[in-house]
Amino acid sequence: MSEFRIEHDSMGEVKVPADAKWRAQTQRAVENFPISGQGLEHAHIAALGHIKAAAAKVNAELGVIPDDLAKAVRDAALEVAEGKWNGEFPIDVFQTGSGTSSNMNTNEVVATLATARSGLPVHPNDHVNASQSSNDVFPSSIHIAATSAVVNDLIPALRHLESALSRKAAQFASVVKSGRTHLMDATPVTLGQEFAGYAAQVRYGVERLEAALPRVAELPLGGTAVGTGINTPEGFSARVIAEIASATGLPLTEARDHFEAQGARDGLVELSGQLRTIAVGHTKIANDIRWMGSGPRTGLTEIFLPDLQPGSSIMPGKVNPVLCEAVLQVSSQVVGNDAAVAFGGASGNFELNVQLPLIARNVLESIRLLANVSRVFADRCVEGIEANEERCREYAESSPSIVTPLNRYIGYEEAAKVAKQSLAERKTIRQVVLERGYIEAGKLTEAQLDDALDVLSMTNSQRS
Amino acid sequence: MSEFRIEHDSMGEVKVPADAKWRAQTQRAVENFPISGQGLEHAHIAALGHIKAAAAKVNAELGVIPDDLAKAVRDAALEVAEGKWNGEFPIDVFQTGSGTSSNMNTNEVVATLATARSGLPVHPNDHVNASQSSNDVFPSSIHIAATSAVVNDLIPALRHLESALSRKAAQFASVVKSGRTHLMDATPVTLGQEFAGYAAQVRYGVERLEAALPRVAELPLGGTAVGTGINTPEGFSARVIAEIASATGLPLTEARDHFEAQGARDGLVELSGQLRTIAVGHTKIANDIRWMGSGPRTGLTEIFLPDLQPGSSIMPGKVNPVLCEAVLQVSSQVVGNDAAVAFGGASGNFELNVQLPLIARNVLESIRLLANVSRVFADRCVEGIEANEERCREYAESSPSIVTPLNRYIGYEEAAKVAKQSLAERKTIRQVVLERGYIEAGKLTEAQLDDALDVLSMTNSQRS
Amino acid sequence: MSEFRIEHDSMGEVKVPADAKWRAQTQRAVENFPISGQGLEHAHIAALGHIKAAAAKVNAELGVIPDDLAKAVRDAALEVAEGKWNGEFPIDVFQTGSGTSSNMNTNEVVATLATARSGLPVHPNDHVNASQSSNDVFPSSIHIAATSAVVNDLIPALRHLESALSRKAAQFASVVKSGRTHLMDATPVTLGQEFAGYAAQVRYGVERLEAALPRVAELPLGGTAVGTGINTPEGFSARVIAEIASATGLPLTEARDHFEAQGARDGLVELSGQLRTIAVGHTKIANDIRWMGSGPRTGLTEIFLPDLQPGSSIMPGKVNPVLCEAVLQVSSQVVGNDAAVAFGGASGNFELNVQLPLIARNVLESIRLLANVSRVFADRCVEGIEANEERCREYAESSPSIVTPLNRYIGYEEAAKVAKQSLAERKTIRQVVLERGYIEAGKLTEAQLDDALDVLSMTNSQRS
Amino acid sequence: MSEFRIEHDSMGEVKVPADAKWRAQTQRAVENFPISGQGLEHAHIAALGHIKAAAAKVNAELGVIPDDLAKAVRDAALEVAEGKWNGEFPIDVFQTGSGTSSNMNTNEVVATLATARSGLPVHPNDHVNASQSSNDVFPSSIHIAATSAVVNDLIPALRHLESALSRKAAQFASVVKSGRTHLMDATPVTLGQEFAGYAAQVRYGVERLEAALPRVAELPLGGTAVGTGINTPEGFSARVIAEIASATGLPLTEARDHFEAQGARDGLVELSGQLRTIAVGHTKIANDIRWMGSGPRTGLTEIFLPDLQPGSSIMPGKVNPVLCEAVLQVSSQVVGNDAAVAFGGASGNFELNVQLPLIARNVLESIRLLANVSRVFADRCVEGIEANEERCREYAESSPSIVTPLNRYIGYEEAAKVAKQSLAERKTIRQVVLERGYIEAGKLTEAQLDDALDVLSMTNSQRS
Repeated sequence: MSEFRIEHDSMGEVKVPADAKWRAQTQRAVENFPISGQGLEHAHIAALGHIKAAAAKVNAELGVIPDDLAKAVRDAALEVAEGKWNGEFPIDVFQTGSGTSSNMNTNEVVATLATARSGLPVHPNDHVNASQSSNDVFPSSIHIAATSAVVNDLIPALRHLESALSRKAAQFASVVKSGRTHLMDATPVTLGQEFAGYAAQVRYGVERLEAALPRVAELPLGGTAVGTGINTPEGFSARVIAEIASATGLPLTEARDHFEAQGARDGLVELSGQLRTIAVGHTKIANDIRWMGSGPRTGLTEIFLPDLQPGSSIMPGKVNPVLCEAVLQVSSQVVGNDAAVAFGGASGNFELNVQLPLIARNVLESIRLLANVSRVFADRCVEGIEANEERCREYAESSPSIVTPLNRYIGYEEAAKVAKQSLAERKTIRQVVLERGYIEAGKLTEAQLDDALDVLSMTNSQRS
Repeated sequence: MSEFRIEHDSMGEVKVPADAKWRAQTQRAVENFPISGQGLEHAHIAALGHIKAAAAKVNAELGVIPDDLAKAVRDAALEVAEGKWNGEFPIDVFQTGSGTSSNMNTNEVVATLATARSGLPVHPNDHVNASQSSNDVFPSSIHIAATSAVVNDLIPALRHLESALSRKAAQFASVVKSGRTHLMDATPVTLGQEFAGYAAQVRYGVERLEAALPRVAELPLGGTAVGTGINTPEGFSARVIAEIASATGLPLTEARDHFEAQGARDGLVELSGQLRTIAVGHTKIANDIRWMGSGPRTGLTEIFLPDLQPGSSIMPGKVNPVLCEAVLQVSSQVVGNDAAVAFGGASGNFELNVQLPLIARNVLESIRLLANVSRVFADRCVEGIEANEERCREYAESSPSIVTPLNRYIGYEEAAKVAKQSLAERKTIRQVVLERGYIEAGKLTEAQLDDALDVLSMTNSQRS
Repeated sequence: MSEFRIEHDSMGEVKVPADAKWRAQTQRAVENFPISGQGLEHAHIAALGHIKAAAAKVNAELGVIPDDLAKAVRDAALEVAEGKWNGEFPIDVFQTGSGTSSNMNTNEVVATLATARSGLPVHPNDHVNASQSSNDVFPSSIHIAATSAVVNDLIPALRHLESALSRKAAQFASVVKSGRTHLMDATPVTLGQEFAGYAAQVRYGVERLEAALPRVAELPLGGTAVGTGINTPEGFSARVIAEIASATGLPLTEARDHFEAQGARDGLVELSGQLRTIAVGHTKIANDIRWMGSGPRTGLTEIFLPDLQPGSSIMPGKVNPVLCEAVLQVSSQVVGNDAAVAFGGASGNFELNVQLPLIARNVLESIRLLANVSRVFADRCVEGIEANEERCREYAESSPSIVTPLNRYIGYEEAAKVAKQSLAERKTIRQVVLERGYIEAGKLTEAQLDDALDVLSMTNSQRS
Repeated sequence: MSEFRIEHDSMGEVKVPADAKWRAQTQRAVENFPISGQGLEHAHIAALGHIKAAAAKVNAELGVIPDDLAKAVRDAALEVAEGKWNGEFPIDVFQTGSGTSSNMNTNEVVATLATARSGLPVHPNDHVNASQSSNDVFPSSIHIAATSAVVNDLIPALRHLESALSRKAAQFASVVKSGRTHLMDATPVTLGQEFAGYAAQVRYGVERLEAALPRVAELPLGGTAVGTGINTPEGFSARVIAEIASATGLPLTEARDHFEAQGARDGLVELSGQLRTIAVGHTKIANDIRWMGSGPRTGLTEIFLPDLQPGSSIMPGKVNPVLCEAVLQVSSQVVGNDAAVAFGGASGNFELNVQLPLIARNVLESIRLLANVSRVFADRCVEGIEANEERCREYAESSPSIVTPLNRYIGYEEAAKVAKQSLAERKTIRQVVLERGYIEAGKLTEAQLDDALDVLSMTNSQRS
């Protein structure tokens, strides 16, 4: 009584765990690639399932495989798409560069399930993979998974974060504070303007994803081995893609040029670049927020972040901006993942890029990390931010840059003298202006001075 | 008799070369930043000139500065825009992070020129810089220069390369060869299909640039110091941007959110990501082409590249794919520049990113390098490529993967046996099929076999 | 009957799973960071265990905590170091940037285990964490884990790969082939020389790791909260580090400057750079090997790689260089991880870098991936490589660059003519030399010609 | 009367500017590579000159070329090494990947100069390049130039910066301030401890360079075309390298494995990684310093930076930390350059990496930028920093983390209550401790409390 069974493929026999749904080629790959211990993302397996299900349907319609067999394949493949069989996908993500091992894993699992239910002899290659090749299926599965994750996870998460930031922008609309450029005191802004700027950054991130989607949502499916579509019946690719688009609700299209689609993965490199840009934006936002909350006694202390957990194992009572730090770390990871994608993306030769699983791993992880951290950042950090209004106004009024509106009355160089004297003598700008006699000299009236030094009005000067 | 004259600014006196058009602040910056020996890109100086010219015009219209003075400023600024005074911009690109030094350099040079012609006392800050701040002018100048370089240089250069590749695609439409996946023999493609794929990659590069342009062409101008537009008259920003758009013919717009536009440079990070994607695509193309041309005796030798220069100082008669190598090196540089841009782009705090000159340097250099190398690659390499048709067909016919169309007749596993036997016994696929008796067994007819093994028809199977 | 119990910390009460060994702070962190679903590397948890065990011993010796309590802590901590309680470390790696959550997780698990066994009231902070802070413990744990993984895993794996490559170098010592520069035919080399070069690359990788180790093996331990060593007794850090060094057999040392050690993570950035350099070297090796094995009919086919698995789901009989591709993908990942480490490493402020878990994740993953892939590449690919001697010699003899040794007799320019004529007229170099009458002209004798054209002797000319 | 003369090479005739010292191959390259407008670094040209001079000497000694001709070549080459003929090196750095064009440029210029002086017919290939190949000369020239720039420029500049930081560390030894972790108030440190930490970072940078130098200083010279040393006389490489080492005073050695040295550029990738680590360290230092100097009214204001130039074109009197920003930008550039080097470094095939000029450009620029910015940062920024002692002490005393030493008396959890009450009620830690009755409860004495709350003693607790 053995815990293994014998399977075979075109290279011979292989011992497979007795209860595994996978077969010989999966098993070979398990043994060939003991590298990271990590498999494909679940969303990626789901995409493979969708392709197999759609292909079975269209193969039957076009007479490539019999209807009953196609139905069995389709039913099994849809279960894979639903995530019921994720445990049957044991192959390391660092594997053959084409993802053939994972495509065959899908073919084998689906064949086993379909055979078990239908009693028909379903062959992994001849039936489940009919009219397909790993070289069009696997990259298509990455594009589908990426499109789905962007549309269904990341864009909603970004909108959620944007919305939290916008609510804070409204809440802080009249909290005036000192602007900062070069980290040095500048003319006033409102805290609301700053948060509205962050919201805009996040909103533009959505635009960036949408700008890249047309090329991400283009599928090589139908090109089979090398882009020529060898061994696919006429009309196959258009029908299959329509079927997947319909099943998933995603805006998927057929590659406009099947040779570009086969040899290059530029669309994923582009998407990765957009994710990286979003990460760069998140870095700015998280840094600003943690600096504004720095203190409580020796920092800027313009805002208060929610207390989430004790901050130190040694310093009692310390609380830290931990979610800002999680955002920063995710951003660094996305920057790193993007570098991996560029490196892998540049390594294509002729009709294939052999770093497909690497590209998939990094693009899909980046999307997932950004989506998750955006939500938790919105909910556990941004939502609970409160302004330190008193401190903010104090800053606004003490910044020597509030001399700026006086340029029009006394010129830049005189204004610089006022600012410097104010600092040196620890006097307010107003005091110094009065002392230096500009009013007596007819440069401006006291009313103009009052008006010029109103910090809140400086934040929207000519705007309504 | 001195070679220097004394200038002053708000910090005191400075010795300036006697004949320099610049003044005190430029001179301070020359002395503060002896770092790279490299200044701003000329296109960048031109953009600064355009801003100053437009601002002068609008400042006069809105009554901020007198008409005659505005005219003098405008005339001088337009000369800067034309590149007449590039020699008067001596400041290192590694300077203050806001680019204030280069903005003041522009203000000073324009003031000197305008004063000299008009006799009016033109002040760098109060007049040339009126209604502006380095913090909106300098990033705007990067966005203008980048938009211009993309629209006027890079996109035309890419179209030029695409067109050269497309001509080759047409020329090689019936040159059948073996496809290659994993570098291993695959089913046939035509050389024309491969070149059409490269052309598509380049064309998609143009789409990528166009997708990013809306956010690159958004200008922070009008936000002045911190985004609030302090010290600008109402209507200033819209008018100035319209004026620059009209003068340059570029699709420039005003920032939708002036706080995003002031604190973040995500639009340039995004553009850099697109440039990087184009570089990744170029890498694939250049690598394929140099591998196809490898040899002459021990390589693939599917194509012949034009001979451009002797290839070796020691090996006589050697000729190398030097322009492919130049493309590869530019691509590496663009990848590196992009990493610099991401690093710098993530470093903004509050109302300013203090790596603006660094971002400018890298984005503008990447555009320029890609544009130049795309043109020279098209003209001196792609145009002159010739196919080695005989070798290509020989490859197509000898690839064991031409067994693939037989899957439908004999199944994947039998077909694998045919392929392996063909290799082991150094026979053709046809020979082995005949020997193994599939025809006798009724699997397929001889006519079907002939049809199945036609390599050119494999390249477009079901497609018309 | 509840599935939860109530725990408390300095911020209040928390519901914790009833059977969890962890307590309140761990639970808060589980809830705060639902981001990647991935925890710390096991080697990292082990390092935390070693620190706690050593600290307990030294704390007892120095009278900070009682002996019996220290023993209980130490025993529990050693079990953590052995990996027995990995399941009790549920916190996401994307967490507070100091790793405080994971340090507290260790403190809590150890306290729970120690309390259960000893019956003593072991407090996570006051006892398990005594004389320590997350800010010195957590980075120390990364440095220990990295040192261990480099010394115990990666260096042995690289030596294993080097040894496999060296055996092949010996085996192929007299297999002469054409060199290739610019992918074009060059003067002859032996296949053994090439493999010896690869072995040298890998050996230099070991040197690179060893060059970085002194700074990686330096521990911030003893600096506690900010580098000053507040709340540690005199002599604590030296003793604890000696204890850990002894327990692990690693060359660990105390930080020479505790403020550098606290605020900067440059040592890990440096190590990551060395890992990246190894990855770059692996890329070259894997690319060369897969190109040499390309074919079987339309590639270079200088060597044969072992058949590991069917290579295509559509093209029967195809076998691909899948382990080379796995190496390439790991290399891309290491390049990406390194970019993440640089980004995170640059983000320190004052007495802490708040991307410690991110740095840990990427450095430790890179080491693990490189170690694993180096072993499997050696065992399943390199070991089985066989030379195609006949093809190699054919290439050596047909390369036009074998004209090179004639430079000394006829000069570079005449030799170039010979090479070009040979190619144009499809004649051997020897034939053309004879035809052009150099022997008659007294430039060289026939014996000199024979000697000059011996391809094997060209591979080591003047060397013995 | 023509401005051109006709030159020829093995490919035919070329028109060359009449007064150019270069010849046909240089001219072809000028025309083939109109890409960046930038040539080789001067230090790189110098290294090429040194190689040619040394080779001429050894070639004469070994009887390869006549003495008088060798002397002429050597004299001319030494002038090139001195930088006298930099203007005769017009080829773009983006050129043939082997640098053959620049090697031939050197050969041609030297031949022209040598011919002019000696009257002998000096041939670029047969004499100036004798016993050499671009494939060993050009990478050797990069390694020489990089070694020289590291040893002669960067290490001294780093020591200069370290020394400035160390002087400040001494000056600020007793300036006590609040530590900051997570940007939040932590236990006290001295400003001197922080500056000493920065000095240590810079000093470790020197160690990093020294750790990499053995592999950077290894030269491929002697391997000629493919590593076999074809066409070099026995003993040539050792002698030439000794000669160059002697002429330059650099620790140059011969490659231990000439095939590694020919095909891989890992030594330069490693060096680039070390430069990148230094850049990461510089980023931390520059960020800390500019944050400490932030203000003057709304920032941390712990130190005062020297005023270098007016900081704003609109905000009068503003002064910014411009040299910190220059350091940050150089650091970003070095990170970017490093990414380019990794990308290029991974692209070697067989006996050559065809991104040598790209690697040279980026490595040499990074060294130069880091050296220059380190010096100017030391001289114009660090030297002039003054402490705001009063503010620093105020911070130290107000940080709630000064409760930390009380852990030993009242435990972590009680201490947390003290810290929180202190913040909530705006009382000092001391006040709260007294109020809560710990002294009455016998937890500690008033003397112990005084001792525990001494902020300066917290900065070096148990250390002497």
